[in-house]
Amino acid sequence: MTFDPFTAPLSAVHVGFTGNRIDRDDRIRRDPETLWAMTMDPTARWLVLDDLRPLARATADSVELAWVRRSEAPRGDTVFLGVDAEGTPRFAVAGSAAGLDGEPMDARALATRLSGDQAGLVAQARSLVDWHLRHGFCAACGGQTKLDKGGYERDCTACGAEHFPRTDPVAIMLSIDVANDRCLLGRQPRFPKGFLSALAGFVEPGESFEEAVARELYEEAGVRTGRVRYVASQPWPFPSSLMMGAFAEATSTDIRIDETELEEVVWMSRDDVRSALAGQGPFAAPPPLAIAHTLLKAWIDL
Amino acid sequence: MTFDPFTAPLSAVHVGFTGNRIDRDDRIRRDPETLWAMTMDPTARWLVLDDLRPLARATADSVELAWVRRSEAPRGDTVFLGVDAEGTPRFAVAGSAAGLDGEPMDARALATRLSGDQAGLVAQARSLVDWHLRHGFCAACGGQTKLDKGGYERDCTACGAEHFPRTDPVAIMLSIDVANDRCLLGRQPRFPKGFLSALAGFVEPGESFEEAVARELYEEAGVRTGRVRYVASQPWPFPSSLMMGAFAEATSTDIRIDETELEEVVWMSRDDVRSALAGQGPFAAPPPLAIAHTLLKAWIDL
Ligand SMILES: [Zn+2]
Ligand SMILES: [Zn+2]
Repeated sequence: MTFDPFTAPLSAVHVGFTGNRIDRDDRIRRDPETLWAMTMDPTARWLVLDDLRPLARATADSVELAWVRRSEAPRGDTVFLGVDAEGTPRFAVAGSAAGLDGEPMDARALATRLSGDQAGLVAQARSLVDWHLRHGFCAACGGQTKLDKGGYERDCTACGAEHFPRTDPVAIMLSIDVANDRCLLGRQPRFPKGFLSALAGFVEPGESFEEAVARELYEEAGVRTGRVRYVASQPWPFPSSLMMGAFAEATSTDIRIDETELEEVVWMSRDDVRSALAGQGPFAAPPPLAIAHTLLKAWIDL
Repeated sequence: MTFDPFTAPLSAVHVGFTGNRIDRDDRIRRDPETLWAMTMDPTARWLVLDDLRPLARATADSVELAWVRRSEAPRGDTVFLGVDAEGTPRFAVAGSAAGLDGEPMDARALATRLSGDQAGLVAQARSLVDWHLRHGFCAACGGQTKLDKGGYERDCTACGAEHFPRTDPVAIMLSIDVANDRCLLGRQPRFPKGFLSALAGFVEPGESFEEAVARELYEEAGVRTGRVRYVASQPWPFPSSLMMGAFAEATSTDIRIDETELEEVVWMSRDDVRSALAGQGPFAAPPPLAIAHTLLKAWIDL
């Protein structure tokens, strides 16, 4: 054992869906007049999400988001994304893209082919638009809600309660067996045989991220945890997760699978992980868009 | 400058509200029969939250949670907390504590005097019980919802939608001016003059934790951020935050305050922070229960 993965320097890591450079400017959201002026700005552009699929234009070797003018955008609850580096106000709205120049594309497939900046906008737009579609009513009283603050709030028309977009923190982690230089990977039933990824689960009320890491590893695989080292985070807009990635020190190595969550859990050597990330087996690794890929890459690069 | 706070080893840090050792055992939640047996177990105990204040018994020099039997607990939506180290099933429920042996106490004041294990139970109980009280209706259709899975889900009786407890990730950070060995502190209007703490804000849809740190520091104080170093996290059940604490490298130092959020923002030297944490001025520091305290302590201990 030549190094301690819990103190060794981490190289800079690439994380999918990060790099959004838009200025979200919350002063604009809070000021209805400025927001209205932004909406009426002739340079303003809309991203239309048709069945949650952003409108895009693809050629054989490139893809770009297909932004439309206000007059072309469907009517509906509209989210202010922010102002880009050129001063262009950007909005997002759900609705039919029929007749518009472009094709609605699956957000995950699209993000894989976009720059981080553009993929970040897709994450922001998809999670906010989806939240509005599923929150037309007040959880406190059942009354109707309406959009406020440029899409970052919904207010109840009956009881006045204010509701805010959800962001659900998820712990995703590699348990590391330091003595044997192995990490723990698993396969959910919905994934194809041969695919392996990091274990993960939602952070629950009343626990820290570190406690969630240890609880999930024990619940899903029966493995106990010592130190937890945070590595990186990413937004994951399916529908609204904040993925928080970590290394977790394994203090036990016997595996006891929770079969309602996972079909397979295995210890994998560094050589096997390096080979898998290069596409050469022995397992199919998560794609670069996923933070599980980031974690595996960060571990083999230590 | 003798060290780099972004790579120097961090000492172990104390974090308020962490240390809950209960076994939340999600297999029990998923199995109505086992859950029922737990409820009927004569050793099972309930924590009653009266107006969100847990029932407790205090003497001059100690305080303990006042757990009651099933027959004494008010009727209502009941949350399964888990099974403790002695095998005792623990539950929480909202309702009147009138006639019970103990006193409803403010959760924050109570947690300050409890062990981490017990304070963690308070965090878990308070955030879950509060979520049920405010989510009797379905955000998707306005129909009534009912508790399921031992309190970790509410299902709509009209459309069948499943709803899960919220946990809202918050970025809380010390911007560090490395060259001058200072950190950035601020005061919200609701805090008394002389009190200073770390800046903070909710992580928004479509951004990473690191991006939220940089955005909040720029929005609230006009300070730009380079590297971000995650330090620790804590549950903060007022009502349901996950506080994620970090050091942020200041790449600019001129302050431009967002006066809707903060009344005062200042750079503070390490000596002043050390003195404040010892209760000797020049400002009033956040208490040990708050992760802002943890961040300040971690910085001066580097
Ligand atoms: Zn309402
Ligand atoms: Zn419903």
